[in-house]
Amino acid sequence: MAKQKKAPRPKAQTPKGFRDYFGPEVTERAEMLNTIAGVYHQYGFDALESSGVETVEALGKFLPDVDRPNEGVFAWQDEDDSWMALRYDLTAPLARVYAQHRNDLPLPYRRYAMGPVWRNEKPGPGRYRQFYQCDADTVGAGSVAADAEICAMLADTLEKVGIPRGDYLIRVNNRKVLNGVLECMGLDDDAQRDAVLRTIDKFDKVGEAGVRELLGKGRLDASGAYIDGVGLSDAQAEPVVAFLTSGRLEAAETLANLRAAIGASTVGEEGVAELEQIAELLAAQGYGPDRIIIDPSVVRGLGYYTGPVFEAELTFEILDEKGRKRQFGSVAGGGRYDDLVKRFTGQAVPATGVSIGVDRLLAALREKGRIGGSVQGPVVVTVMDRDRMADYQAMVAELRQAGLRAEVYLGNPKNFGNQLKYADKRESPVAVIEGGDEKDKGVVQIKDLILGAKLAEDASLEEWKDHPSQYEVPRDQMVAKVQEILDLHK
Amino acid sequence: MAKQKKAPRPKAQTPKGFRDYFGPEVTERAEMLNTIAGVYHQYGFDALESSGVETVEALGKFLPDVDRPNEGVFAWQDEDDSWMALRYDLTAPLARVYAQHRNDLPLPYRRYAMGPVWRNEKPGPGRYRQFYQCDADTVGAGSVAADAEICAMLADTLEKVGIPRGDYLIRVNNRKVLNGVLECMGLDDDAQRDAVLRTIDKFDKVGEAGVRELLGKGRLDASGAYIDGVGLSDAQAEPVVAFLTSGRLEAAETLANLRAAIGASTVGEEGVAELEQIAELLAAQGYGPDRIIIDPSVVRGLGYYTGPVFEAELTFEILDEKGRKRQFGSVAGGGRYDDLVKRFTGQAVPATGVSIGVDRLLAALREKGRIGGSVQGPVVVTVMDRDRMADYQAMVAELRQAGLRAEVYLGNPKNFGNQLKYADKRESPVAVIEGGDEKDKGVVQIKDLILGAKLAEDASLEEWKDHPSQYEVPRDQMVAKVQEILDLHK
Repeated sequence: MAKQKKAPRPKAQTPKGFRDYFGPEVTERAEMLNTIAGVYHQYGFDALESSGVETVEALGKFLPDVDRPNEGVFAWQDEDDSWMALRYDLTAPLARVYAQHRNDLPLPYRRYAMGPVWRNEKPGPGRYRQFYQCDADTVGAGSVAADAEICAMLADTLEKVGIPRGDYLIRVNNRKVLNGVLECMGLDDDAQRDAVLRTIDKFDKVGEAGVRELLGKGRLDASGAYIDGVGLSDAQAEPVVAFLTSGRLEAAETLANLRAAIGASTVGEEGVAELEQIAELLAAQGYGPDRIIIDPSVVRGLGYYTGPVFEAELTFEILDEKGRKRQFGSVAGGGRYDDLVKRFTGQAVPATGVSIGVDRLLAALREKGRIGGSVQGPVVVTVMDRDRMADYQAMVAELRQAGLRAEVYLGNPKNFGNQLKYADKRESPVAVIEGGDEKDKGVVQIKDLILGAKLAEDASLEEWKDHPSQYEVPRDQMVAKVQEILDLHK
Repeated sequence: MAKQKKAPRPKAQTPKGFRDYFGPEVTERAEMLNTIAGVYHQYGFDALESSGVETVEALGKFLPDVDRPNEGVFAWQDEDDSWMALRYDLTAPLARVYAQHRNDLPLPYRRYAMGPVWRNEKPGPGRYRQFYQCDADTVGAGSVAADAEICAMLADTLEKVGIPRGDYLIRVNNRKVLNGVLECMGLDDDAQRDAVLRTIDKFDKVGEAGVRELLGKGRLDASGAYIDGVGLSDAQAEPVVAFLTSGRLEAAETLANLRAAIGASTVGEEGVAELEQIAELLAAQGYGPDRIIIDPSVVRGLGYYTGPVFEAELTFEILDEKGRKRQFGSVAGGGRYDDLVKRFTGQAVPATGVSIGVDRLLAALREKGRIGGSVQGPVVVTVMDRDRMADYQAMVAELRQAGLRAEVYLGNPKNFGNQLKYADKRESPVAVIEGGDEKDKGVVQIKDLILGAKLAEDASLEEWKDHPSQYEVPRDQMVAKVQEILDLHK
């Protein structure tokens, strides 16, 4: 608090794109993270918490041609001029941690991590520049058994946090199959390959016919704008369409279709074989196509994936901001990235993992009414006589010793109405009142605020009389009576 | 992952002053935070999580004469040139949050917050630039009942996390008493007042005689260096010494001594009266001087405190790095700060709160052996035949369905010794083995790794034979046998 006397008052505002989380928003997230950590732990993953700050070179975002490496990250210079930045995900820090501590860590290293990450991006509605991720990764396991395990764990996790079977689907694909398709098309132009990948990513939106158009001459989109196509001939486009439409409920059929789509490509065959193994491993553990399926339309944006990729989607419908029905969509994704640790050590270290978008998953659970129910406010002991604060605090101490959530009103006690308004704002179930008369008689008044609110809403005068919502009990029965009212409303 | 091919390899290192936390370091902290949140919740406090990033003007660290506001904080410029910074504590953000959302928040607003904070300071041994705080504050309550409540809650919290009564002491003082003493000394020179405050802060180290010297001409310290004194006469120094030495076990005696020390100072009398009320309120709730005492030697560094200040100290002795006994010291502190919200709104809003130094408290609990016991590693299912991975993953799935922590070995299975070494590194209690012979016979081998390690350490050959640490059981009894071994070692 430096001398601020002459300065104008600071604005009480979060920086653009940041926000505060209150009460249940915080505790519900904490509970969900705790549940997820429990599943990860059971699968043998160990906790890791790396710092929020990394060197820019470790994050790998440094672009030599710009003075300031702020492409997507929040970065600044330390006193010795080295650049530091806030982590933008939990994967880049894991690669750094593994490279730094590899001599002390078990191999394979299964770790989970949860915490905020920061993105220096344009904020938008529902898009914040700080948000939570919750990741699990296995470093040093080249076998696709590791990928299958991550998919199984993801399914277990979703069910454990409250998404029932049938409301989610984990879709698995393999970058190698995609590469095989591109190889078999004879595409050697990088720009054209990228354009094909972007088109594949649009399959869910535009469907088979749309993809055909986009791979060929182009397409008129819904807004009437013309989207240039990739410029392939129909024959050239065919393998992509065959690939995209190879998905079936039965993994065996999907795999046969994929084999046809990749032609003689070696890398493609490797990819299909890996998907086949994953399907077998999951079937052996009882994860059927109602939970995890092979789906060739999954691409995953990140460039660093080298093999299997997966995505968890919530399949139930919600209403979007315009009142239209749509599927809730993706809440988690991941895949195999075998080159991230190599950046540091020069040695390839296979790795695979998943990242759960915690805030989106919370939104989904709230949407379904699975969390966000009533939060129990504290019992409020009101202050009728400010000189007897010690008495009131002793009452609160008694209530707490009985395990109840309770507090004494600490604002200005002069206006009793304000005290009840406060109790209302806190969603207090019960208020305790002890004025001078009660003190003399050795009693307290106990007000059932939940019943009181209900009566105030819709009771006739007779009902009101029949259901008193305030009770006078001897002082030594205060805790028991409060407990009784709380039990009643459970 | 931009093009990095030509660039030298990045260093796999945290930035200077930052560190990673592994396994139990993470989970033990999470458990402790959870326990603390439970106590805060019971006292009626609601959770708040503000973002890690604040505007520099909201943090209040901006110094107009420097180009870059990096005094103690990590700061950078956003694209619109406004300065942002990582929060350095949880109190400054609370003042901003309260000012921003005051129309929606209850009054008084009791909130707790926990999370990392960042300091741009020179790191040292055990001093990191990112660390956890865990705060509870009451905003909008001017009554010292709020301060007393915070002290009581702090005592409850320490006991709840595992510091037994007798091993901690909460010391309470009041800045107003201190101001009263300075007033009664007639000190109007700011520099001299500051020098007196710094001297008071040394009382614990140098004792009464040392303080007398430091207030007067100066003092030869242990290293032989001469420390200049404040330059007061003996008569001038007397009130300070009287104040510092007024602490007694009985609050009433301490208060009487303090009254004598402040002479006719009005603010001093106000401070003593507040301490008296706090002592009464705490006594009424049963918090005696074995838990919370009035202690005039508590100063608390921060300039923004305006009334009661408090500090929680662990009183048991530990050995320092040089093997000397010393008290563990402070793990939490706080006090009343009535001017922080006013920075934003112009209106005074009284507030009081406490901050627990989570990492120090964890260190204390580890020191006392109260946490950091054995962490249960996962049951490891070994891979004898890599083509039967599906079988092994099915075994693991069975173990997990029984609620056990289990995993299949995912490294290269060729060398069986490496698999057992891995199990050892993970502190696995049990390994499960199913080779071709076992498969044919319908059995599995179950290895008790804890007993095995014990035997390997100190058993004679006879004992070794009498206590086999490996069992052959039918495949369908695998889970039961593993469970039996785990129960045995509980």
